[in-house]
Amino acid sequence: MEYPSKLIEDAVNQISKLPGIGKKTALRLVLHLIKSKEENTLLLTDSLNKLREGIRFCNRCHNITDTEICAICNSGRRDKSIVCVVEDANDVMAIENTAQYNGLYHVLGGVISPINGVGPGELKIESLVNRLNHGQSEIKEMILALSPTMEGDTTAFYIHRRIKDLSLKVSVIARGVPVGGDLEYADEITLGRSITGRTLFN
Amino acid sequence: MEYPSKLIEDAVNQISKLPGIGKKTALRLVLHLIKSKEENTLLLTDSLNKLREGIRFCNRCHNITDTEICAICNSGRRDKSIVCVVEDANDVMAIENTAQYNGLYHVLGGVISPINGVGPGELKIESLVNRLNHGQSEIKEMILALSPTMEGDTTAFYIHRRIKDLSLKVSVIARGVPVGGDLEYADEITLGRSITGRTLFN
Repeated sequence: MEYPSKLIEDAVNQISKLPGIGKKTALRLVLHLIKSKEENTLLLTDSLNKLREGIRFCNRCHNITDTEICAICNSGRRDKSIVCVVEDANDVMAIENTAQYNGLYHVLGGVISPINGVGPGELKIESLVNRLNHGQSEIKEMILALSPTMEGDTTAFYIHRRIKDLSLKVSVIARGVPVGGDLEYADEITLGRSITGRTLFN
Repeated sequence: MEYPSKLIEDAVNQISKLPGIGKKTALRLVLHLIKSKEENTLLLTDSLNKLREGIRFCNRCHNITDTEICAICNSGRRDKSIVCVVEDANDVMAIENTAQYNGLYHVLGGVISPINGVGPGELKIESLVNRLNHGQSEIKEMILALSPTMEGDTTAFYIHRRIKDLSLKVSVIARGVPVGGDLEYADEITLGRSITGRTLFN
C-alpha cells in the first residue's frame, strides 16, 4: 500500500503494532483522526503518555496501580486472611466485577511456560512465597485462580509444592459447565470434571 | 467496569472513542501498552501528534498530503487531461493501488446526503467546477468514481448538471459482477446492470 504522506505511513505502522489491529484497520483509524478535531488526537495521545508515565505495579500484590501500594491492598474493608493468585491484572478486574470476592490478590504476571521461555523465576512466585511465609502474615487461605490450561495447572502445581509446608488452606476455582451453557456443547473433559467435582444440591 | 487506576480509565475512554473499538478492546490495548516498553507508547503518541499537526489537504484536489500541492498534482508523469472524482482520500489510495490509472484526482470529501445534512455546499464541488471551467484547464475527461449508492448517484447527477455546458467527456466507472464473484450470488440489480452495460468480447 502506498500512502499519500510519510506521516500517515508512520502512524499506520505504529498503530498496527497493537495486538489485533492490522494495516487496514490502522488506516481507517488514521483517516478517522485526520477527519475529527485535532483536540481529540491530543486528548488520546495525552492520556496514553500519562498512562505510560504514571502506571506502576503494587509493591505487595503486583497489580496495576498508580500508587506504591494498590487500593485493594490498602483497603481496610478487604478480608486480609485470603489471597487469590491470578495470572494477570485483567483477571483481577474480571474477578472484582463479579462482586463475589472480598479478599486480597497476588498477580503472577504470567504462567510457567517452557515453550515461551517463561520459568518460575520470571513470575512473582518468590514474592508470593515470601508474603505467605512472612511472620506477621494473616493469610489463612490461598485460592489458585489460574487458567484451566496445561500451563496454568503446571504453575498451580509448582506453587503448591513450594508452600506445602505452611499451614495454609489451598483451594482452586471450580471447573465445570459454564452457567447458561448447553450441556450438549460442553467438551468431554469439562463435562467429566463437572461430574467428578459435583457439589451438594441446595 | 471498575479500573484499578484513573489513568487506565482515561486511556480506555479515549481509545474507545475510535470507530470500531469498544471498551473491552480498548482495555486490551491499554494492558498491552502497559506491558510493553515505554518507548513503544512514545513512538505511537508521537506519530499521532505529528500526523495531526502535519497533515493538510491539497489546495488543488483536496487529497490528504503534507505539502501545499499533493504529490499526484505536482507529478510531471501524470496525465493532466483526465480527472477522477472520488468521495474520500481512501478512494484515491484504493485506485492508486490498482495501478490502472495515471490521471489526476478530485476529492469531494463526501457525497450529497440530505438525511445526514450534507448538501452540495459542504462538498468540494464548487472547486471542481472552477477547476474544469478554468481558462488554462487541460482536463478533457472526468471520471465519476463515486459509490454505487443512491447518494453517490445523486452527487454524480448534480455534478453532471453543473458542468453539462463544458465540452468535456464525462464517464462513470463500470458497474457489473465483481471479478472472481459467482454469478449466482450477484444481486439482481448488479446482474441487470452487467447485462445492459455489456462490452464487446475481445
